[in-house]
Amino acid sequence: MKNSGAAFRLPASLVKRAVSAALSEDLGEAGDITTDAIVPPDSISEAHIVSRKEGVIAGLELAKSSFEALDPTAEFRAGLVDGERIARGAVVASIKGKTRALLTGERTALNFLGRLSGIASLTARYVEAVSGTKARIACTRKTTPGLRALEKYAVSAGGGVNHRFGLYDAVLVKDNHIAAAGGIGAALGRLFARRGHLVKIEVEVDSLEQLQEVLAFPIDAVLLDNMNAATLREAVKSVGGRTLTEASGGVSLENVREIAETGVDLISIGALTHSAPSLDLGLDWRR
Amino acid sequence: MKNSGAAFRLPASLVKRAVSAALSEDLGEAGDITTDAIVPPDSISEAHIVSRKEGVIAGLELAKSSFEALDPTAEFRAGLVDGERIARGAVVASIKGKTRALLTGERTALNFLGRLSGIASLTARYVEAVSGTKARIACTRKTTPGLRALEKYAVSAGGGVNHRFGLYDAVLVKDNHIAAAGGIGAALGRLFARRGHLVKIEVEVDSLEQLQEVLAFPIDAVLLDNMNAATLREAVKSVGGRTLTEASGGVSLENVREIAETGVDLISIGALTHSAPSLDLGLDWRR
Amino acid sequence: MKNSGAAFRLPASLVKRAVSAALSEDLGEAGDITTDAIVPPDSISEAHIVSRKEGVIAGLELAKSSFEALDPTAEFRAGLVDGERIARGAVVASIKGKTRALLTGERTALNFLGRLSGIASLTARYVEAVSGTKARIACTRKTTPGLRALEKYAVSAGGGVNHRFGLYDAVLVKDNHIAAAGGIGAALGRLFARRGHLVKIEVEVDSLEQLQEVLAFPIDAVLLDNMNAATLREAVKSVGGRTLTEASGGVSLENVREIAETGVDLISIGALTHSAPSLDLGLDWRR
Amino acid sequence: MKNSGAAFRLPASLVKRAVSAALSEDLGEAGDITTDAIVPPDSISEAHIVSRKEGVIAGLELAKSSFEALDPTAEFRAGLVDGERIARGAVVASIKGKTRALLTGERTALNFLGRLSGIASLTARYVEAVSGTKARIACTRKTTPGLRALEKYAVSAGGGVNHRFGLYDAVLVKDNHIAAAGGIGAALGRLFARRGHLVKIEVEVDSLEQLQEVLAFPIDAVLLDNMNAATLREAVKSVGGRTLTEASGGVSLENVREIAETGVDLISIGALTHSAPSLDLGLDWRR
Amino acid sequence: MKNSGAAFRLPASLVKRAVSAALSEDLGEAGDITTDAIVPPDSISEAHIVSRKEGVIAGLELAKSSFEALDPTAEFRAGLVDGERIARGAVVASIKGKTRALLTGERTALNFLGRLSGIASLTARYVEAVSGTKARIACTRKTTPGLRALEKYAVSAGGGVNHRFGLYDAVLVKDNHIAAAGGIGAALGRLFARRGHLVKIEVEVDSLEQLQEVLAFPIDAVLLDNMNAATLREAVKSVGGRTLTEASGGVSLENVREIAETGVDLISIGALTHSAPSLDLGLDWRR
Amino acid sequence: MKNSGAAFRLPASLVKRAVSAALSEDLGEAGDITTDAIVPPDSISEAHIVSRKEGVIAGLELAKSSFEALDPTAEFRAGLVDGERIARGAVVASIKGKTRALLTGERTALNFLGRLSGIASLTARYVEAVSGTKARIACTRKTTPGLRALEKYAVSAGGGVNHRFGLYDAVLVKDNHIAAAGGIGAALGRLFARRGHLVKIEVEVDSLEQLQEVLAFPIDAVLLDNMNAATLREAVKSVGGRTLTEASGGVSLENVREIAETGVDLISIGALTHSAPSLDLGLDWRR
Repeated sequence: MKNSGAAFRLPASLVKRAVSAALSEDLGEAGDITTDAIVPPDSISEAHIVSRKEGVIAGLELAKSSFEALDPTAEFRAGLVDGERIARGAVVASIKGKTRALLTGERTALNFLGRLSGIASLTARYVEAVSGTKARIACTRKTTPGLRALEKYAVSAGGGVNHRFGLYDAVLVKDNHIAAAGGIGAALGRLFARRGHLVKIEVEVDSLEQLQEVLAFPIDAVLLDNMNAATLREAVKSVGGRTLTEASGGVSLENVREIAETGVDLISIGALTHSAPSLDLGLDWRR
Repeated sequence: MKNSGAAFRLPASLVKRAVSAALSEDLGEAGDITTDAIVPPDSISEAHIVSRKEGVIAGLELAKSSFEALDPTAEFRAGLVDGERIARGAVVASIKGKTRALLTGERTALNFLGRLSGIASLTARYVEAVSGTKARIACTRKTTPGLRALEKYAVSAGGGVNHRFGLYDAVLVKDNHIAAAGGIGAALGRLFARRGHLVKIEVEVDSLEQLQEVLAFPIDAVLLDNMNAATLREAVKSVGGRTLTEASGGVSLENVREIAETGVDLISIGALTHSAPSLDLGLDWRR
Repeated sequence: MKNSGAAFRLPASLVKRAVSAALSEDLGEAGDITTDAIVPPDSISEAHIVSRKEGVIAGLELAKSSFEALDPTAEFRAGLVDGERIARGAVVASIKGKTRALLTGERTALNFLGRLSGIASLTARYVEAVSGTKARIACTRKTTPGLRALEKYAVSAGGGVNHRFGLYDAVLVKDNHIAAAGGIGAALGRLFARRGHLVKIEVEVDSLEQLQEVLAFPIDAVLLDNMNAATLREAVKSVGGRTLTEASGGVSLENVREIAETGVDLISIGALTHSAPSLDLGLDWRR
Repeated sequence: MKNSGAAFRLPASLVKRAVSAALSEDLGEAGDITTDAIVPPDSISEAHIVSRKEGVIAGLELAKSSFEALDPTAEFRAGLVDGERIARGAVVASIKGKTRALLTGERTALNFLGRLSGIASLTARYVEAVSGTKARIACTRKTTPGLRALEKYAVSAGGGVNHRFGLYDAVLVKDNHIAAAGGIGAALGRLFARRGHLVKIEVEVDSLEQLQEVLAFPIDAVLLDNMNAATLREAVKSVGGRTLTEASGGVSLENVREIAETGVDLISIGALTHSAPSLDLGLDWRR
Repeated sequence: MKNSGAAFRLPASLVKRAVSAALSEDLGEAGDITTDAIVPPDSISEAHIVSRKEGVIAGLELAKSSFEALDPTAEFRAGLVDGERIARGAVVASIKGKTRALLTGERTALNFLGRLSGIASLTARYVEAVSGTKARIACTRKTTPGLRALEKYAVSAGGGVNHRFGLYDAVLVKDNHIAAAGGIGAALGRLFARRGHLVKIEVEVDSLEQLQEVLAFPIDAVLLDNMNAATLREAVKSVGGRTLTEASGGVSLENVREIAETGVDLISIGALTHSAPSLDLGLDWRR
Repeated sequence: MKNSGAAFRLPASLVKRAVSAALSEDLGEAGDITTDAIVPPDSISEAHIVSRKEGVIAGLELAKSSFEALDPTAEFRAGLVDGERIARGAVVASIKGKTRALLTGERTALNFLGRLSGIASLTARYVEAVSGTKARIACTRKTTPGLRALEKYAVSAGGGVNHRFGLYDAVLVKDNHIAAAGGIGAALGRLFARRGHLVKIEVEVDSLEQLQEVLAFPIDAVLLDNMNAATLREAVKSVGGRTLTEASGGVSLENVREIAETGVDLISIGALTHSAPSLDLGLDWRR
């Protein structure tokens, strides 16, 4: 398989673990009682994964692994790589292998591929909507529990950029942190005292006043929360390139371009991962 | 917490395992580096989970566990039970506990609650759309890998019924099973020979001719795949109550009532789980 | 290896997990300190698994995997498939591979094969005892903790049928459920309201009076608990084919035929799994 | 709970892990669909575990944990400790707690307790049969895969002694080790060269000639395999107390006393663990 | 317990998992066969953890958990918090609880506490050696496999700062990356194209020429590898505050101050984690 | 790879598990974001693991597995086997495979190999220091939590012998056991009553008086704790070969020979595992 269009690679062990958990969930202890009772063990079939809608593909490695886990000799040939656009009705991949493996693995493979492609496809629509501006589209931590790495990967395949992966790899200071610390100075003071030199710091603000306060500190990015386009524009002007600017809150396909044109560096959108509909895919049998 | 409106209970160990995995995913090895650096360990806060949209709630136990895993003394009080409808702006639950636990657990709790409530809310809209008919709304195996039990639970909380949980707990015979066996007779013959007496058998058909063939066997349900309303009506008439009838394929909020009025017993809808948008929830701090 | 005579296939991942756990249990952290110290790493041997008693074989895949996990190049050739009868003194399988792997894996392979074949053999004796009647022999949930799927598989290989796999895949209503609900009507009413359409319902009764009450509901099976042959006969007559009948309690090889001749559809026997002696197998070395 | 009569304690984490795995196996993902649908969550019940046969109890901690895992407030009161004898019809323990927990946990608790008490009971019969001789009754590695520690514990509760726990904690040299090494001298030479000073060495012999050869080395025990009573007596005499003697192979309740009277120190019996019938236990409800 | 002096908190679930794994490793399946055989279950003892050397403490939470896992009622009182200095002979903590838990948990508790305190103590010596300069002491990824988070925590407790936690949370470009990419421009070009906005980039150089090349890019830090003090001084001057400077390679307690005085921002030292001797701690019994 | 010089083999599953855990720790969820962004997937490289110091190698199998887990086609050729001595600057092994795998796996491979070789090297120095005496050098349970088996293996590769692996495989009676039992007689009485016949018993004493008391029992070894050479000599004389003698406490490279010359059988040294500095190894790229 060619190199994916995504910005990072899913560790192979993570792919294997995700597929193994999904198959176990579907097989339980008795396995596929329909297929095992009916289909002869030596029967071989061929099928195509076909896209019933236009979109962007992500998750081919997971689909491939779903079939290979059940039949190590299965041949999975993808006609494109993650991050590529697919037309309605086009073939995503062909699989040839044991009929039992194709029948048993079908749903797991399509569940992964449909969900990740759905996220990549929605991301690509946002990316396209802001094309020509300098704004990049970013995801958030509003991901499906247990699937964050896969969903971040799909956003990346769709042309978006990844925000922090979790609470552990970057600092994002919010209102309630500041309140609990007794003020922005106290909060940031504690952070700068001992954080690692490779950890970035972003601070969330929801007014231009807060923004002024925050700009007194050498932070890496500022999150402009729930501001309208006019306020965002003013904020970007205030910042004057001293730090990265990220707009967040209430973003939709309708207003994303207007937001992008305010000059912000990033626009982060929870819906990319928490509300993207699956890409409609099917398995067409060719015997 | 009162008894949920769902048809089954999530095993407590499953809730614990899901919450623990989600928190680990978010905390990594360094933990919440923002909160731990800024917020004093003995600070106590109170917050409300508020719904920003109208919907049906599901997953309260998971939200509760997310906070309790971080602060065993946290008090989580829900104002309603899973399966109940919530108005836009209403309070879902209040939490009082360590500020650190509230800040660190917020995203995990809302990710669970938002996703499951989104599924319950969409299910409830379908259930309402067919009210007065005998049709019940069912989910499918098109679920998010690793979250099937939680998503089936959410469908149930929304008033839907559950299809089989996996390949292991009921038989569903499709085209390709029949083709691989060399005909419907051979396929069903093998099944009836030795299956357990508590395992039900459903067969998928996509034409009235196939339906006739299948009705010769004492099956428990027939899946009428991708038929229009007229054909469904005829199929239901043919069956004459000898077995349960399930309509599937191309169902939307627009056409679901028309399908229900054909007299089918069940309507199964993949979108309930693979494409439901999250319910928009927020954490409002009250100190 | 040919297709097993059992009614379902053990998922390959389940076999792998069971074998890996058993080997870890036997190897601990220091491994096989006898073999590793004494036997040269390149030594090759050949051995036969031989049955010291007459019986029915089950679990060949587990024995094979036990050796292959230690030596992926080992050749394991079985002379029969699961579910076939073996004579006293006959060869079950031959293994050729590294001497170390044969010595280290011997006990794990035989422990699996002996236990499962013991269950299959006992099941086969019951099946034979009722041959000619319509009664099928079923297992229960009285299985060894952690080994249920393997033991259900062995029952199936021995010609028996499987009862439910756990509390999750079928409903079995007992006395204490009914008492806690406040009566049979209340109990069944709650069940029929929302259970999935692919879930079967069985109810346990211990008198003919209870049986009459229960027959008012469209249940799938009735468990006739601890009734003598005369009562069973009367119960079967009362049911008149409206539902499946299962006899349970106090069944032995001595009385099973008498019970079968009462006309019940199923006879379930806990001893198949909780008290079957292992089939006596040995490893004969042939160098 | 009082201290058990067994020679070692099961680590608490091992008990918890075993119970958790067994409950997961029984609950699957949907949980106890019968109980959860029918029984009100606040219903409280009381029940007695009663022995339907005479025997020796082992595994109370596992039964207790099975109920407590489902209802942490459940009260489990045992009337005796592991290793004590129980009369037919006597109460083993009483449990008071949520009706749901009692119904859901019943089978898991009884499966553990029945199996381990079965092993303890059989062991006690052998121990009694040799009473007055110096022979101790020992188990082997012929245990149920995954349950070895529990089964060794049960043997100990029944008055037996434990052989090695696995391949890792003691050396047992067999024919095929010696053959692969090219002779007894080579085999033992390699062992004595570098083994840890706290590792014991036992060697299996099946003739008096082999015994003589082996006695030239400072081994800790000799396994006299498949010898009749006369040969055993002669072997014991030859050894003359220089090392421990263990008889093994073909031992039954009929011949165990005769074997014991040959003067051997230990008699090891695979059937203690691989073929002990469960002790027949039931849960009697008292509301 | 008071708040630790370390820069981050170990997630509680990580502490629990580490302790549980360590206890399992020590207990195996038979548990503490010495203590369980000899010590009565109700015996209570008290003991002090005492430091036999001067040093800095880290890992108190792990020691506490080791005892509490075995006796939930044990009282563990620490006289200081992680990061504090302890004198030779001083009491680190007192524990009162079941004698069995104290004897069984002693080694696990001391192994954690000794190792982490050893790392904290060595770090503190380096930190002290550079005091008054602006240089901070940092660890590397040269940690004990499986213990990275714990060891990074110990470095932090000793007054050091943490480098990246793994390959996943920051970019560090080395020679071989650049060579494989075909030059520094190609390498950094690919990185800047799509990396997340919260990911920092550091580049390793081993000559002043390479440094010049690298300074053309907006990187966050430069790793000056294996340079002597004179070269480091020149490098720091070249950089002129445009990016952070880190010295690495061949650092010892003898030369660390000289390196610090070159004006570098950070000095990273693998030996902090891969070669720190344990702090010598003992458990003194007080009954 | 040739057979290692160590006294036991690490079970292959244990090696695989350790490597997989270490790689997961280093890769997190996003993987090696530097390498994956910069290095083309089809790039192939070759490198040598070189020793920067003189020492004894241990852990080659772990290094090999670290690369193979990332690139199954990687060729790892070791120039020596575990337990062999390597000169400063000599090549330990060469690896050829995907550049990505070499860059990503380098640190994990070296962390394992450096740590285990450090232990083997320190052990070898002690072994050499006592050469010509009958004393063997043994490790203790003062190992890194989670790595005990690997570290015991390294001691063995360095020519040392292994003490017990944990609390489960041998008995070691200390002061506090005896005090809790109410005297040495009571303590040993309980042990001898029922321990398995393959479990050895060692007792710790810290005076010649205690030694006399202990010698009244048929124990396997006596631990002479913290005695000076003169006392040790007297103790050895008292024992007169009736049991093994082990010296422990305060052992260093300076005094170990003096201790050995007292005639003790074993000298156990915690520092072998808790304070051995890593062997300094590097990866030299050869393209």
